[in-house]
Amino acid sequence: MRRVEFAELQGRIELVLLALGIAPARAALGAKLIAETDRDGVRTHGVARLPRFAQWIQSGMIDPRAGPEKVAGFGAIERWTGRRGPGNLAAYSAMQRAMELAREHGLGCVALADTSHWMRAGTYGWQAADAGFAALCWSNTLPNMPPWGAGSAALGNNPLVIAVPRRVLSPGEGAGRSAPIVLDMAMSQFSYGALASYRARGEALPVPGGYNEYGRLTTDAAAIERSQRALPIGYWKGSGLAFVLDVLAAMLSGGLATHDLSPDPLKEVGQSQVFLAIAPSSVETMEELSRFAQGASVAQRAVDALHAAKPIHSGEPVRYPGEGTLRSREESLLRGVAVEDEAWEAFVKLELELSHA
Amino acid sequence: MRRVEFAELQGRIELVLLALGIAPARAALGAKLIAETDRDGVRTHGVARLPRFAQWIQSGMIDPRAGPEKVAGFGAIERWTGRRGPGNLAAYSAMQRAMELAREHGLGCVALADTSHWMRAGTYGWQAADAGFAALCWSNTLPNMPPWGAGSAALGNNPLVIAVPRRVLSPGEGAGRSAPIVLDMAMSQFSYGALASYRARGEALPVPGGYNEYGRLTTDAAAIERSQRALPIGYWKGSGLAFVLDVLAAMLSGGLATHDLSPDPLKEVGQSQVFLAIAPSSVETMEELSRFAQGASVAQRAVDALHAAKPIHSGEPVRYPGEGTLRSREESLLRGVAVEDEAWEAFVKLELELSHA
Repeated sequence: MRRVEFAELQGRIELVLLALGIAPARAALGAKLIAETDRDGVRTHGVARLPRFAQWIQSGMIDPRAGPEKVAGFGAIERWTGRRGPGNLAAYSAMQRAMELAREHGLGCVALADTSHWMRAGTYGWQAADAGFAALCWSNTLPNMPPWGAGSAALGNNPLVIAVPRRVLSPGEGAGRSAPIVLDMAMSQFSYGALASYRARGEALPVPGGYNEYGRLTTDAAAIERSQRALPIGYWKGSGLAFVLDVLAAMLSGGLATHDLSPDPLKEVGQSQVFLAIAPSSVETMEELSRFAQGASVAQRAVDALHAAKPIHSGEPVRYPGEGTLRSREESLLRGVAVEDEAWEAFVKLELELSHA
Repeated sequence: MRRVEFAELQGRIELVLLALGIAPARAALGAKLIAETDRDGVRTHGVARLPRFAQWIQSGMIDPRAGPEKVAGFGAIERWTGRRGPGNLAAYSAMQRAMELAREHGLGCVALADTSHWMRAGTYGWQAADAGFAALCWSNTLPNMPPWGAGSAALGNNPLVIAVPRRVLSPGEGAGRSAPIVLDMAMSQFSYGALASYRARGEALPVPGGYNEYGRLTTDAAAIERSQRALPIGYWKGSGLAFVLDVLAAMLSGGLATHDLSPDPLKEVGQSQVFLAIAPSSVETMEELSRFAQGASVAQRAVDALHAAKPIHSGEPVRYPGEGTLRSREESLLRGVAVEDEAWEAFVKLELELSHA
C-alpha cells in the first residue's frame, strides 16, 4: 500500500485517459471520478480498474470518443444511448440530465442503454446528493451470479444506489457540509474482487459468500471462485431483486438485459442503467428545506437515532451508509490517497505503455 | 387448513369491515384486497391480520372513516396524508394517484405520511403492473430489526415492492393475460410471522434467520423470537437498504421515520410510504409497446432466460418473482382459498363479536 497525493493521482489518470483517446474536458472529468473513487476508499473500482478500461478501449469494445445521446422522451422520463462510450462519463451525464428533469417536473428519470461499465456505482449517488437531490440508480451487469435454485450464473450482481441529501447541522462537525446518506450495494454478498482479496490475504469471509464445489455454503473465498457460485444477498430475495432491476433497466432503456451480455469480462459492454432523481425544488415546495434550515432534518434525526443504537462491540458504533466514505476521504486528503501496490504497479506500467505508443 | 370459496371469503370480510365502521364502497375494496391476499397464497397478511386490524380500530389507533388527502404537490410528485385511516385503502389510492401522475408526466410519485399498516405490500405492485405500469413502492415499519453492528431493534424491516408489467405472449399460456414480475420483500430474512410458523411446525429455518441469546447466527426460529435479533438480508447490506428506504420515505412524505414509531405492534400507526409509477404511455412513446405486441418483450425474454437456467434440483425450475403467486391464485379459484384453521377460527370469533356489538 502506498499513499499518492490526490492532485497527482488525478493528473496522472487524466494523462492516461487523454492517451487513450478521450477528449480533454471528458478526460478531466473521468480522471476526477476515478481519483475520487480511490480517495473515498473504494479501491476495487478506481485506478485498479484502469488497465481493464484500457483493454476495453484497445480492443474496440469501448469507443473513447462516443458520448451519450438522447433517443426519446416523454415528460419527466427520457431514454438515452451511451453509444458504447466510457461508462462513467455516460452515467455522470445521465444523472445530470435526470436532475435537470427533476428540477422541472419534481422527478426525473433517464434510462440509458448500450453503455459500458460505470466503474464505482456510488459516484452517481454522491453526485446527486451533493447537489441536493435524492436519487436511485442501478446498472445491470454480465451474468456473474446464479439465480436462487440454479447452479450456474444467469443473473448480474446489478449494483443499486440510493442517495439521500443531508447537510451537517452541528457547527462542531462543520455545519453546512454535505454528508449525504449513500447506499451503494451489489446484489452478491461479495464481489469477485472482494473474494480475490480475501483469498490473497488467506482470510475466511466474515459470513458465507457462496457455495463450494459440493454445493455447501462456505466462507472459503477460493472455493467460491472455483465454483463460480456467489451468493445473492438474502438468498432468494437478492436473486429476485437482481432480476427485477435487470428487467426494468432493459425495458425502460430499450437496451440489453443480463442474458444478452457476454459472460466474458473482457467483452462486457452494452449495459442498461436507470437514473432517477428527486428534486429539492419539490421538497422545497413541501416546506422540507425550511425544516432542514431549522435543524429538524429528517435525515439528521434518523442518523442520530441510528447512532444511538447500542453497539454489539463497544467502541464500534453503528454507521449509516456513506459514513465510512467521508472518513476515508478526509484521511486521503490529509495523508494522500491509499493505493494497493499491485494496482499502482499496473497503473505505472499502463502509463509507460501509453507513452511509448 | 380449510378451503373457502373466494366470493364467500370476500363477502364475509366485507361485512366485518362494514361492522368496523368503514363506509360501503371502501369496505368492498378493502375486502377485495384482503381476500385477494389469501387467494394469492400470502396467508400471513390476509384474513389472518383482520383481528389485529379490528383491535387498531377499536383502540382508536386507526380511524375507519378517514381517507387520504393531498397535502402538497410539485409536477409529478405529490405529498399525501393517510390521516391514520385504513392503510390498505390509503395505499391503493396513493398508487392510483401515482399512476395518474405517470400518465401525465411519464413518471409519478406519491409520498404518503401518517398512514397505517398497508397489509400485503405486493398488492400495490400487482395493482400497478396489472394496469400496465412499472412501479416501485415501499413502507417503513416499527423498529423490529437491529441495524448491522447493534444488538437491539432500531430499523424497520421496511418492505420493498418492484413490479414490471408483462403480458403472456404464448397462446398456450393464455395470451394477453397479465403475468407481471412482482418482487415483494421485507428487509429481514424472515418476518416474525414466518418465524412463528417455523417454530409452531418444529422446523429449522432453511438458512440462518437471526441470532440466538449467545449472539450466534441460528436457524432456530424460537431462539430468534427470544433474542428479538432478526437478521437483515445480506447482513450489512439489508441493514443499509432498510435505513435509506426509511429516511427517504419520511423525508419525501414529511412523515414519521421508524425511530418515531412505537415498538409496540398494537400501537404501530403513522407509517410513511412512497409510491412510484412509470407510465406505459412513456414506454409507448419509446416504441416499447409495439415490441410487446411483436412478441419480443424484454420481460418475456428475461423470464425465458431465467427459466433456461439449469436448476440445482431437477424438476424444480428457477422461478421469477410473482410466478408462484399466479399458481396459488389459480389453485384458489379452482379449489377454494386456503386459510389456516387458527386464522379462520379467529376470523369467525371476530364476526361473532361484531354481530353482537
